Amino acid sequence: MKHNFGAGPGILPHEVLKQAAAAVVDFNGIGLSLLEISHRSAEFEAVLDEAVKLVKELLEVPEGYSVLFLQGGASTQFAMVPYNLLPSTGKAAYVESGVWANKALKEAKFFGEVDVIASSKESNFTYIPKDYTVPADAAYLHLTSNNTIYGTQLHEFPASSIPVVCDMSSDIFSRKINVADFGIIYAGAQKNMGPAGTTLVIVKDEILGKVDRKIPAMLNYRVQIEGGSMYNTPPVFAIYVSMLTLNWLKSKGGVEAIAKENKAKSKVLYDEIDRNPMFKAVCAVEDRSDMNVCFVMENPELEKPFLKLCDEKGIVGIKGHRSVGGFRASIYNALPITSIYVLVDAMQEFAEKNK
Amino acid sequence: MKHNFGAGPGILPHEVLKQAAAAVVDFNGIGLSLLEISHRSAEFEAVLDEAVKLVKELLEVPEGYSVLFLQGGASTQFAMVPYNLLPSTGKAAYVESGVWANKALKEAKFFGEVDVIASSKESNFTYIPKDYTVPADAAYLHLTSNNTIYGTQLHEFPASSIPVVCDMSSDIFSRKINVADFGIIYAGAQKNMGPAGTTLVIVKDEILGKVDRKIPAMLNYRVQIEGGSMYNTPPVFAIYVSMLTLNWLKSKGGVEAIAKENKAKSKVLYDEIDRNPMFKAVCAVEDRSDMNVCFVMENPELEKPFLKLCDEKGIVGIKGHRSVGGFRASIYNALPITSIYVLVDAMQEFAEKNK
Repeated sequence: MKHNFGAGPGILPHEVLKQAAAAVVDFNGIGLSLLEISHRSAEFEAVLDEAVKLVKELLEVPEGYSVLFLQGGASTQFAMVPYNLLPSTGKAAYVESGVWANKALKEAKFFGEVDVIASSKESNFTYIPKDYTVPADAAYLHLTSNNTIYGTQLHEFPASSIPVVCDMSSDIFSRKINVADFGIIYAGAQKNMGPAGTTLVIVKDEILGKVDRKIPAMLNYRVQIEGGSMYNTPPVFAIYVSMLTLNWLKSKGGVEAIAKENKAKSKVLYDEIDRNPMFKAVCAVEDRSDMNVCFVMENPELEKPFLKLCDEKGIVGIKGHRSVGGFRASIYNALPITSIYVLVDAMQEFAEKNK
Repeated sequence: MKHNFGAGPGILPHEVLKQAAAAVVDFNGIGLSLLEISHRSAEFEAVLDEAVKLVKELLEVPEGYSVLFLQGGASTQFAMVPYNLLPSTGKAAYVESGVWANKALKEAKFFGEVDVIASSKESNFTYIPKDYTVPADAAYLHLTSNNTIYGTQLHEFPASSIPVVCDMSSDIFSRKINVADFGIIYAGAQKNMGPAGTTLVIVKDEILGKVDRKIPAMLNYRVQIEGGSMYNTPPVFAIYVSMLTLNWLKSKGGVEAIAKENKAKSKVLYDEIDRNPMFKAVCAVEDRSDMNVCFVMENPELEKPFLKLCDEKGIVGIKGHRSVGGFRASIYNALPITSIYVLVDAMQEFAEKNK
């Protein structure tokens, strides 16, 4: 058995995978594969409706927000957000908490002025910048809620008088959020929501339509809202598997229940990292992520042998990102706490052996 | 058993679906689902490499072209093409052969001047416009090789001194084409290539980089080429199933072999439509598509009862597009000729009963 700590595309619930596989051969007993039916069929429309309903239910999305399933990943949102929200004579405020935030702000520069109001770049993003004032004259404030590469997470969102746009790719559905505090939330599916190939966008309708620029249809939130995520053929399979995963989450008790589990999981692992003299965490304690736990070894020469031990125990995907090194254990919703115990056991066993 | 004449997402080979389903549970015996492995893993990189290789092999793509698997469908290409190729002071030539061509040219208008050099709109697109001169001073000529809704197909591509950009969404891999004649070929996967969720783009490298405009990374062909379709997380599953489908096509003898089968299939059906006094084809004989066969009934009141008969015989997806009415039998690569015989039998049985 494998223990999948991969950073994404990441682990999905086993029962979801079994259902998805069945639908690829015969969808709901209709004698056709999910992959070969029209996206305009009643069967798929029911899937999309259910997926949207589950997002609204699980995140308690208030009135006045639209829920979209798009293509192109968060990287397309990096451009789509300023395309729709940043006037060419205006400015947008960005908090640079990692490489993805940096990519987002670079795209925004194509469309208007970008004010990087805070950055932790000088420390290789080991903490979440917090001391800043949100400029009241900016079109929006852009945040990244969880920084997969560095293992930092925004545990408290700043107060803001301007719309807050947040990339939640790596922690959406892992904890309770107050959607009403945001103008746009976007997230690539491939961490907590489903497979790669679709992107969730939750957008407050009233913030749209304030920019003069002509926007290509596929990049225009209003066109996508009007088309109900079906302006063109949507990524049918990715949406279906996301729907199944959200249904699984609901059956587990929703985001509050999973948030408790996630906290418990990350605590077991951080406790071991802090206790075990062979390992150390890399980022600011108060900003530690409950999704991606990054750590290194006191003696870097032991990292390879430890990876080898992990491999023997079926622990996969924990090699750290090249820009941080060491290890990154991604512990998304679908990862059972038993996998954490296996990792902790391996850390203890390794420390014992290499005393 | 179902006979799937759906226009798209359309029929896929049964063995491809079985392989895809197996990979969703356990990919190549690695103990993990294809959906939960990193797109940077050796396993997925091999899939993407193989998919690119198969495209090059099946279409005999010459040197100097890049093969991309992107997201966003042909509709994103409608904007991406002019974004990358149409200078803001330049113009592009479009042949308007259907609603999709019309959508493409509308997007181009956001970026520069659009010269609609020919259109069959006045006849509800029942033929392919042919009498036109390609303006030598345009940045490119845009064509649609097959018009799914109307059942017309470009059987001979026009000579052009400027780069030809062609939307081949509904007939790619159905026949031999000379890639060297094109600047860009693009196609949503969900007809002949795979499931919805990825878009094939074949681009001649030398036509890029001639426009001053700043292009968002995800919409920039050069960025996508440099990233090898992995500038960000690609649509893993859709690419995998496309690879399987292309492999299936190769095992069938490639595009020349399938083109013969497709011709044979369409001939059986058109022959019956022409012979059977109850039915008639809707578009110009010389422009008839080998992919989408559109036909109506002499007596429109009999269309509903005929659909009912089809339903009884397991014939699905043949209701015509609302803008044409009647019937549309999409007979993509994966549809066996036996399904055509079942449809023809139904037409004969119906005509006999309703004499």
